[in-house]
Amino acid sequence: MARAKVAVVGYGVIGQRLADGVALQDDMELLGVVDVAPTLAIRALHEIGMPYRLYVVAPEQKAAFDALGIPVSGTLDELLDEVDIVLDASPGGVGQKNKAVYEARGVKAVFQGGEKNEIVDVFFHGYANYEKGVGRDYLKLTSCNTTGLIRAVDCLDRAVGCERVIVTIIRRVADPGDTHRGLVDVAQVEPVPNHQAVDLMTIMPHVEATGLLVHVPTTHGHIINVIATLKGEMTKAEALELFAAHPRIRVVRIADGFNSNTSLFRYARDLGHKRADMYEIAVFDETVATSGRELMFAINIPQEAVVIPETMDAVRAALSLQTDRLEAVALTNRYLGLG
Amino acid sequence: MARAKVAVVGYGVIGQRLADGVALQDDMELLGVVDVAPTLAIRALHEIGMPYRLYVVAPEQKAAFDALGIPVSGTLDELLDEVDIVLDASPGGVGQKNKAVYEARGVKAVFQGGEKNEIVDVFFHGYANYEKGVGRDYLKLTSCNTTGLIRAVDCLDRAVGCERVIVTIIRRVADPGDTHRGLVDVAQVEPVPNHQAVDLMTIMPHVEATGLLVHVPTTHGHIINVIATLKGEMTKAEALELFAAHPRIRVVRIADGFNSNTSLFRYARDLGHKRADMYEIAVFDETVATSGRELMFAINIPQEAVVIPETMDAVRAALSLQTDRLEAVALTNRYLGLG
Amino acid sequence: MARAKVAVVGYGVIGQRLADGVALQDDMELLGVVDVAPTLAIRALHEIGMPYRLYVVAPEQKAAFDALGIPVSGTLDELLDEVDIVLDASPGGVGQKNKAVYEARGVKAVFQGGEKNEIVDVFFHGYANYEKGVGRDYLKLTSCNTTGLIRAVDCLDRAVGCERVIVTIIRRVADPGDTHRGLVDVAQVEPVPNHQAVDLMTIMPHVEATGLLVHVPTTHGHIINVIATLKGEMTKAEALELFAAHPRIRVVRIADGFNSNTSLFRYARDLGHKRADMYEIAVFDETVATSGRELMFAINIPQEAVVIPETMDAVRAALSLQTDRLEAVALTNRYLGLG
Amino acid sequence: MARAKVAVVGYGVIGQRLADGVALQDDMELLGVVDVAPTLAIRALHEIGMPYRLYVVAPEQKAAFDALGIPVSGTLDELLDEVDIVLDASPGGVGQKNKAVYEARGVKAVFQGGEKNEIVDVFFHGYANYEKGVGRDYLKLTSCNTTGLIRAVDCLDRAVGCERVIVTIIRRVADPGDTHRGLVDVAQVEPVPNHQAVDLMTIMPHVEATGLLVHVPTTHGHIINVIATLKGEMTKAEALELFAAHPRIRVVRIADGFNSNTSLFRYARDLGHKRADMYEIAVFDETVATSGRELMFAINIPQEAVVIPETMDAVRAALSLQTDRLEAVALTNRYLGLG
Repeated sequence: MARAKVAVVGYGVIGQRLADGVALQDDMELLGVVDVAPTLAIRALHEIGMPYRLYVVAPEQKAAFDALGIPVSGTLDELLDEVDIVLDASPGGVGQKNKAVYEARGVKAVFQGGEKNEIVDVFFHGYANYEKGVGRDYLKLTSCNTTGLIRAVDCLDRAVGCERVIVTIIRRVADPGDTHRGLVDVAQVEPVPNHQAVDLMTIMPHVEATGLLVHVPTTHGHIINVIATLKGEMTKAEALELFAAHPRIRVVRIADGFNSNTSLFRYARDLGHKRADMYEIAVFDETVATSGRELMFAINIPQEAVVIPETMDAVRAALSLQTDRLEAVALTNRYLGLG
Repeated sequence: MARAKVAVVGYGVIGQRLADGVALQDDMELLGVVDVAPTLAIRALHEIGMPYRLYVVAPEQKAAFDALGIPVSGTLDELLDEVDIVLDASPGGVGQKNKAVYEARGVKAVFQGGEKNEIVDVFFHGYANYEKGVGRDYLKLTSCNTTGLIRAVDCLDRAVGCERVIVTIIRRVADPGDTHRGLVDVAQVEPVPNHQAVDLMTIMPHVEATGLLVHVPTTHGHIINVIATLKGEMTKAEALELFAAHPRIRVVRIADGFNSNTSLFRYARDLGHKRADMYEIAVFDETVATSGRELMFAINIPQEAVVIPETMDAVRAALSLQTDRLEAVALTNRYLGLG
Repeated sequence: MARAKVAVVGYGVIGQRLADGVALQDDMELLGVVDVAPTLAIRALHEIGMPYRLYVVAPEQKAAFDALGIPVSGTLDELLDEVDIVLDASPGGVGQKNKAVYEARGVKAVFQGGEKNEIVDVFFHGYANYEKGVGRDYLKLTSCNTTGLIRAVDCLDRAVGCERVIVTIIRRVADPGDTHRGLVDVAQVEPVPNHQAVDLMTIMPHVEATGLLVHVPTTHGHIINVIATLKGEMTKAEALELFAAHPRIRVVRIADGFNSNTSLFRYARDLGHKRADMYEIAVFDETVATSGRELMFAINIPQEAVVIPETMDAVRAALSLQTDRLEAVALTNRYLGLG
Repeated sequence: MARAKVAVVGYGVIGQRLADGVALQDDMELLGVVDVAPTLAIRALHEIGMPYRLYVVAPEQKAAFDALGIPVSGTLDELLDEVDIVLDASPGGVGQKNKAVYEARGVKAVFQGGEKNEIVDVFFHGYANYEKGVGRDYLKLTSCNTTGLIRAVDCLDRAVGCERVIVTIIRRVADPGDTHRGLVDVAQVEPVPNHQAVDLMTIMPHVEATGLLVHVPTTHGHIINVIATLKGEMTKAEALELFAAHPRIRVVRIADGFNSNTSLFRYARDLGHKRADMYEIAVFDETVATSGRELMFAINIPQEAVVIPETMDAVRAALSLQTDRLEAVALTNRYLGLG
């Protein structure tokens, strides 16, 4: 069977990782990445020999790349002739404009969390609602925090049922290297509920959710404290066993040195992962506690890479590569080396 | 009636503020402050004209002060002759050694949160268990986080009863100007439960408590997300009303600009408060939410000054200045300009 | 003689401090402060009893203050009837628009560093070029870094002459409480030369200047490393003596605990200074070194308050309160408690 | 010819990178790495399949590894039987104790910057004084800052001669993931001169050097502003050309997005470098400026990996693999993919 033909539009923090993710899927083919200017990410791509073909949005953007000797293979318009689906990782809000282009060309697309739910057919999470995305044209992924959170909650929910979730999100306020946003010596509080709780309820309508979000001056991963009210009893050991069995969740111990968001980033560096990325969320063993039917646990969300697996799932769903949820996520996991 | 004679031992972050607090109590007299070296805090005291008399612990420490022209009024030993009670704000663990000295001299003492519970008669909180401290010799205050947390929980508990508390503490990792501790780009996770939850249960044994603590790179106040299971129903409006009526709690709105720990610090600066301190904890209005009998709310704890009012209460209790809880805290509040 | 009638337009970080500065000058009268919305700074002013009269720019802005019970005394237009001079501390660029209003009304004005040099008659520094401002209508202060830097360089220049200055500015990237700007785990480099060096040459055209500026994630003061090529020899001891004799410069020692920008902020807190502000720059004793005719030293610039004294000087110059430089700065210093 | 047999003692931040560096040298053989406990770095090594053999220092340390299923190949004592040279990357001060062991066994060793100069025969820098290390038994590398600084100064010195260097070092205070050190909202000033200037003079005794060091709350690289007094004239273009031709120096442009220490870290991530490391220092093009015989420029020092190339040079020198400086560094560069 022919491999699915994929393009990535927007070669930023997420777009770079989507391209790498697609390149790892044996049943997908990355036809090209699209950007509008020779950013550092594009320069790095050039320095390592252009493993991906590069396209611009408008022809006049080509000159800036030419000046640097960076080969451009054509325009988005030309690329759309060849692809089955676009992974749109444009800056928030731009995807909405791009959708009109994709729609006019009859090309399916998967958008990221920065776009509005209204522009798509399905608000999607590979593990939680894969079936809803099968065969649909326009999907939107949950944001990084929500993607990771739902992984953990869905895992519990499928085991014993989950009624309610209250989260406290300690949110990294910038990515490494950002100079356009940041906080210094400030923990900034957002009104309750945060959008992640609302989004979780959209994806998992049978769960009641609320929570607080506080922005803090870090760059290497969000920490979420989750209090889940389960439908049945579950011991700490059982919860840890469930989490450990999940291919996209790592259980780590503070006592071993995994004592922070950044310890996980550092560990990913030491594993030799590309860009020091990690696809898995982590559950800190010593933060898991139970009280009646309530399970409390803290997780780490590696914001730059966490949505890549679920976006691969989205391609599988939209193109009906697999109609079965578990079959789909298992393939994504295998190609990404998870589990 | 004669004013209570008070000494402050240890003129650091807490000791400075205790001294100022005592000086504001009309029925107390600050006989002196004690330290071992001419720190910046002592130099500042000198620059503003030595409003408090200064004592050293050992006679040989006097030379360093003499060299700078900073007058020393004597030794701790001499000071103990004159005082009714010592507020010990020594570095954690030193208070334990000092206690033997106070005991030998028959002087009462109040210790701070860095000491062990075992060295005192009562683990004390002005609002929550004032009566237990009345007439006792050695009291220990709750730590900054616990002091602020108990204020809010006690307030709810006395109104409708509180069964359980789950907290997520986003802890500032250093005080402004500290160079001996800190974190850079790290959110560090501690095992559950945190000591604040355990301490809360010690002070309020009828409440079940647990929680997570995460250290973050900020200096201007802890943020605690509290989930309290109440014994009765309470609306958001009722909760806000209760909090607003508490002399040691401020209700603030994110929409007004109180959107962080540091906004409260900045506000205290603009109020002209000495050292930009604030005695009150703050409840962020937009973070208060209810779900059945559960009330969720986020508070800000100004770590440097928050324990001052409850320490004044402790003096009142230990010396039996007042035997009635509400009478005692009301006097403290009046002299500190609270409520 | 009648006191000079002064208004402050813009009650933000700088405007608040200008208002307090004017209020301390015996020969000036603060007629009012102007703002457009009930910010936290205005709320704090209200909480402490409105020591200053408040005006709005447009009548329709009054409603928001009325709703909070904050008394408004009138509009900027009305206030301009009564004043001799405006201290404009509006956000950068707004001063330019305001100038047309002041000009139409024949009112003098002093602007801050965020405005362009072109809109004023004189780019002003109290110590370095007071005479140029005497009797002029529109003056602009140097920015915080430049103000502090020129203090030190002018001090050396008047003693032995200064030919050249090379600076490395380690710039705090936000003020305490800012949530609209910041950096996390980033030291951001600007192209050489920085504007401070260029500005220094504008004020002191006989000095050649250049330098590097690096933004770092701190809020409590800039650090500048200065390498000054002097016209004559000067020992470290002589340099320290000169600096120590300057009323707007403090000489501090790392060995005493003044080991950082934030140690000075903390010291100002402990001195009981309003808002923990400091008008003086600090020279770190142990960073002063000589090499032939080159003098190297590091200074701390308290960015929020450092321009207040020189702005008071500007009022004196513009209104010809004093025509003599030293007489003028001496009066400012006396009223601000400097020296 | 047989490959040089190398051991790495201490598998921390530097030791891990030394091991990888040795593994890349075709004429060296990494016989094993030594550590005392299953740190995260060792766990990562295990997770990726133990590409290096692991040894413990004391036999009783083996149990902890056994418990985790991490294979241990023996003890340091056994490893010393087989190796020609040890790269000691133990915590500062431990190397001194280890030296006695190496000496007793007649094994050569290269130490890192945390050890004292007194314990070695030569204080070494691959480019600046390679010849001094040839055939010697015990070498010590310059620290990360000094290593990078000397690269740039030596490059200028060999071209036109350098008389004097004044540096301002903006030092990252912790490595990513560190929880045992850090600063929050503080720029901490050290007395002049910093040890890097003193070290530079030790390696390059014909250059006079001094400078200031300021610790700032970042983790991704030091920034050094260098003012070099050259013996001849050099234009900015010539300086950039020299730097660009150096295999261990990158010239980057702020205008292209290389505007901070962290932009370089991010770029290394995007290049797919292991651990997001970079061996090269970077010169920021727009910070290079001249004034007579003085050349000013700012460099970025990637503190975790910068010493690896010069340590490989040290092996070449100590074992007399090459006696010619340029031949030696060229081989190191080729195997590390530099230039």
